[in-house]
Amino acid sequence: MSSTTSNSLSRRESWRLLILAGACISILVNTFQGDGAPLIASIAFSGIVFAIAYSLIRWLGPVFIKAGLKGRDMAKPRKPEIPETMGAVCAIVYLLALIFFIPFAFYKDIVAATSGGGNRDVVLEVQHVETGRMLHRFPHGRLASYLSGLLSLQCIVILGIGDDLLDIRWRHKVLIPAFGAIPMLIVYFVDFGVTQVVVPVPLQPYLGPVVDLGWLYYAYMGAVAIFCPNAINMLAGINGIEVAQSLVIAILLIANDILYLAPITPFPHPATDSHLFSLYFLLPFVGVSLALLFHNWYPSKVFVGDTYCYFAGMVFAVVGILGHFSKTLLLLFIPQIFNFLYSTPQLFKLIPCPRHRLPKFNATTGLLDASVTEWPTQPSPLIATGLEVLHQMRLVRITKNEKGEIVESTNLTILNLWLVWMGPMKEDRLAWSMVGVQVVCGLLGLFIRHRLALLVFREDNRTFGVFGV
Amino acid sequence: MSSTTSNSLSRRESWRLLILAGACISILVNTFQGDGAPLIASIAFSGIVFAIAYSLIRWLGPVFIKAGLKGRDMAKPRKPEIPETMGAVCAIVYLLALIFFIPFAFYKDIVAATSGGGNRDVVLEVQHVETGRMLHRFPHGRLASYLSGLLSLQCIVILGIGDDLLDIRWRHKVLIPAFGAIPMLIVYFVDFGVTQVVVPVPLQPYLGPVVDLGWLYYAYMGAVAIFCPNAINMLAGINGIEVAQSLVIAILLIANDILYLAPITPFPHPATDSHLFSLYFLLPFVGVSLALLFHNWYPSKVFVGDTYCYFAGMVFAVVGILGHFSKTLLLLFIPQIFNFLYSTPQLFKLIPCPRHRLPKFNATTGLLDASVTEWPTQPSPLIATGLEVLHQMRLVRITKNEKGEIVESTNLTILNLWLVWMGPMKEDRLAWSMVGVQVVCGLLGLFIRHRLALLVFREDNRTFGVFGV
Repeated sequence: MSSTTSNSLSRRESWRLLILAGACISILVNTFQGDGAPLIASIAFSGIVFAIAYSLIRWLGPVFIKAGLKGRDMAKPRKPEIPETMGAVCAIVYLLALIFFIPFAFYKDIVAATSGGGNRDVVLEVQHVETGRMLHRFPHGRLASYLSGLLSLQCIVILGIGDDLLDIRWRHKVLIPAFGAIPMLIVYFVDFGVTQVVVPVPLQPYLGPVVDLGWLYYAYMGAVAIFCPNAINMLAGINGIEVAQSLVIAILLIANDILYLAPITPFPHPATDSHLFSLYFLLPFVGVSLALLFHNWYPSKVFVGDTYCYFAGMVFAVVGILGHFSKTLLLLFIPQIFNFLYSTPQLFKLIPCPRHRLPKFNATTGLLDASVTEWPTQPSPLIATGLEVLHQMRLVRITKNEKGEIVESTNLTILNLWLVWMGPMKEDRLAWSMVGVQVVCGLLGLFIRHRLALLVFREDNRTFGVFGV
Repeated sequence: MSSTTSNSLSRRESWRLLILAGACISILVNTFQGDGAPLIASIAFSGIVFAIAYSLIRWLGPVFIKAGLKGRDMAKPRKPEIPETMGAVCAIVYLLALIFFIPFAFYKDIVAATSGGGNRDVVLEVQHVETGRMLHRFPHGRLASYLSGLLSLQCIVILGIGDDLLDIRWRHKVLIPAFGAIPMLIVYFVDFGVTQVVVPVPLQPYLGPVVDLGWLYYAYMGAVAIFCPNAINMLAGINGIEVAQSLVIAILLIANDILYLAPITPFPHPATDSHLFSLYFLLPFVGVSLALLFHNWYPSKVFVGDTYCYFAGMVFAVVGILGHFSKTLLLLFIPQIFNFLYSTPQLFKLIPCPRHRLPKFNATTGLLDASVTEWPTQPSPLIATGLEVLHQMRLVRITKNEKGEIVESTNLTILNLWLVWMGPMKEDRLAWSMVGVQVVCGLLGLFIRHRLALLVFREDNRTFGVFGV
């Protein structure tokens, strides 16, 4: 049974997308002729990639199904077969957009401040340099950083597609983002190599104001890059949840970036470049993700595949690491971090872990309920006690038989926990709940970042008036 | 019927590969501790990627078949089903190696000449700069160029895998390399932007010694990048031919690079960096291609897929364009250029073009013969005359019925032409013949480049003694 939806755009959709794309292209042309404001160009690119990704996802459905990239949606009464791995389409459109964006990002440096042609390093005659005239140098370092971010994203997309195709084992999968992180870390090592971090005030008497972490800093960055993609891949299993959580995180990161670029912030702020860089990566990401969400939200017409989860997580890792705000980034991952910690007993096989832990669809009621692990043999006394305690704390639901033996316990994911708390609900209401949780936790995270961080760091690097403005 | 070969390494193979990899790794460790000679590191990397690619190709066979990445070898009596798209494995191993190689390529610049830590641009205090001390700057431009080459290769690998999976139409396929070329051209535009070319001596009175081609130069580079991958993809269809021709071209390019780096050449030669860059890309390519050839040579255990052809062609385009020797590169593509020109009547549908034009296997004799296009209706008089003339020149073989009407004509590929000339032969002999043609034409091309080019250009840029050495 194949999907019953049409695989072409309706006339109304076509017109809307054409008008959107046309408007964005004309903005883009104006930008390039004018003073090349890269942020406006980036917004225009986001509109264009939305239109392209939206159309491609619709058109490519049958092609993907024919190529065997398909899956069954088990949480629907008729279990329809729909295209899988559509995140790869988004990722490719996104990557091409980011490549085409390069001249816009560096327009000012190419045309306005240098001679506009020839080797960018030889923009002035030697005597000018010797007489001390201010020399605008092309920001090779920033370009290398941008390119290394792109390389990492491409790497993870290639490996993600391989994962979706070849069905790689769980313990190998976890390391895919590590390979994706390598280009970024290596270019960071070669081109920047800054491994000093600011020490929190309470520790400064012991460590000094700044400490050089050396290779530990690379290990930390690698850990962030491994965590983000896997964390998003782990909070999955119902329609739209992967894309929706990624969109919330992206939008909150954009809000955080805007804090540094808004007119109320003193300019030029030392972190301006980092946050512009972050916006260049995030705005088109929002574009392609929205296009995907239209097709992936309940009831899903397409699945996103592991490719999307890895890709989304790596976009966040890239902006967090290369933009130097990885701690802020992690504050936006609170639900994912909780989900990971909550899952550890199953990940480390203290409690049996079935291959899929997604909520269970009840065909009679049409509602989702928490899925369970069955205990054919009784758990060890220690684990039984642990489960009992968690049950008392309402962090897990266990079912016992008449002998008082544990028959089953709910799987340890945040989705199942929510269903334990709130009772069975429809799939889209569960997805909306998770969006709500993500938004609330994210806003809390940003509050911690910009208010409470002053308790342990000498200054918020967004502090107003530092420059006397 | 599945492949009957084992999918694990024999004990002998395992030992050999382990010894090779071990030796290379120890060379690598020594290189990094010593003065970081990047060329030796690159050779060591080539050995390592050979061992990894060889093992992975062997191990992943069943996984690929299970995932549906398989094809039938029609030129064998039993038409065995073997894994397809194995070129993707090579490409991924290659790309990771090139990423890991980055610190080696820039070792001298990181450690020996700068302070070895901290931001690479701030290696000396301001007063040192002002007092005019020689400042070694990190070669950001070279790094950006290297990264853009990697981006282009990753792009084409992603799109090539998409092509192999989704079975994209011929007229869309041709443009895949164009997308692959974009990162390279955009970074070239942003970071270098040199579009001047040296004018051949006979034209210098009219055009001056150097002419600025402007955007035409980008069109030229784009054309090279579109041509190379498609040209290799077009000369395909028998066991081992795609990999073998790529290996011959790569080895001849390496020979050409060595001409610029050999002790007899004055040092520092202005093109030294370009040719080192080329070697860094080509040596590991030879490593992975050799590993693939062991499995893809007659009788093939695996197919390479379009991914390999695009990938190989793009490696050549990257080194030719970013190393500034694209004219030399094209001289090594003589058989491919001939094959393309010879095919044009079928490509432009003047003569009907069946989907596959590979030589036909005769199960009785076990030999390959030229495949044919059938003419159910007679061709137009013009085309009939053309075919007649080509037949007289022995450039095509036509068969007529008793009424003197053309019944069939051989397909216009260099493989079929060779079979027309030499008669039916075994598949491996045909592949060896093509290797021979490629070697002879390539050596001729290099001879033209280094001897005859002096007739139209003022100097071979490899001329000895220019610097008075």
